[in-house]
Amino acid sequence: MNLKLHTDYGLRVLIFLARTGRRVKLEEVAQFFDISREHLVKVGQALSRHGWIRATRGRQGGLELAQDPEAIDVADVVAALEERKGVLECVLEPSICRLEPGCRLRKRLMQAEEAFYESLRNLSLADLVRRPAPHHGLSSIN
Amino acid sequence: MNLKLHTDYGLRVLIFLARTGRRVKLEEVAQFFDISREHLVKVGQALSRHGWIRATRGRQGGLELAQDPEAIDVADVVAALEERKGVLECVLEPSICRLEPGCRLRKRLMQAEEAFYESLRNLSLADLVRRPAPHHGLSSIN
Repeated sequence: MNLKLHTDYGLRVLIFLARTGRRVKLEEVAQFFDISREHLVKVGQALSRHGWIRATRGRQGGLELAQDPEAIDVADVVAALEERKGVLECVLEPSICRLEPGCRLRKRLMQAEEAFYESLRNLSLADLVRRPAPHHGLSSIN
Repeated sequence: MNLKLHTDYGLRVLIFLARTGRRVKLEEVAQFFDISREHLVKVGQALSRHGWIRATRGRQGGLELAQDPEAIDVADVVAALEERKGVLECVLEPSICRLEPGCRLRKRLMQAEEAFYESLRNLSLADLVRRPAPHHGLSSIN
């Protein structure tokens, strides 16, 4: 079971933007992750279309978060970038089944996919870039 | 989010064998699904290695179930054929992360994958080939 590279890159871009907290050039992101500019453009367009980032053109242009990291739900991002096409071909296209048209697998795979996304629910982009609490509980003293 | 074609074929082979209830030639399965013999051999080897089917050579040879369909858990089949390598590269190989070494995404993705498999738990191969009950409750009359 794999998520797409597209989703992987999308999450990385969001984490990068949340971490830097400023507008960044596409090239900067591409260099940092050593991934192609072309692929990154597509990922940026998808993130922009969903309203998570803002892309501006020109010399001062670049990518920046369009929402507070607290407001960006990772489950939504993954679901949107994956496009939820069904984990097997027959889930989206039951008519292709040559074997068991009423097979329960299809429904159970849909439920399993839902369980996957439900498990990611309420994890925000802010959670991903939050520094872990230091050991020995010093944070509660300071 | 997609399962591998390998897993798709593995499930199809098991359903085919459970439905026919006899030993079948590899060629018969390949023809029925219109998939390559080579790919099917690999799938058969994997299913055989896990003890779900028995493959015998020779003129009378072929593939047959090695266990009762009630005893074959679909979650086990999917997990075994998928090989559970992590839904993103960083899940299996946290050291590749250039960004957030302590990122919570990794743990949550592992939990989400687990939730996917948990949701499929207790679905047997027998469930997949069981005919749906007829409408209007006639089955309880007969």
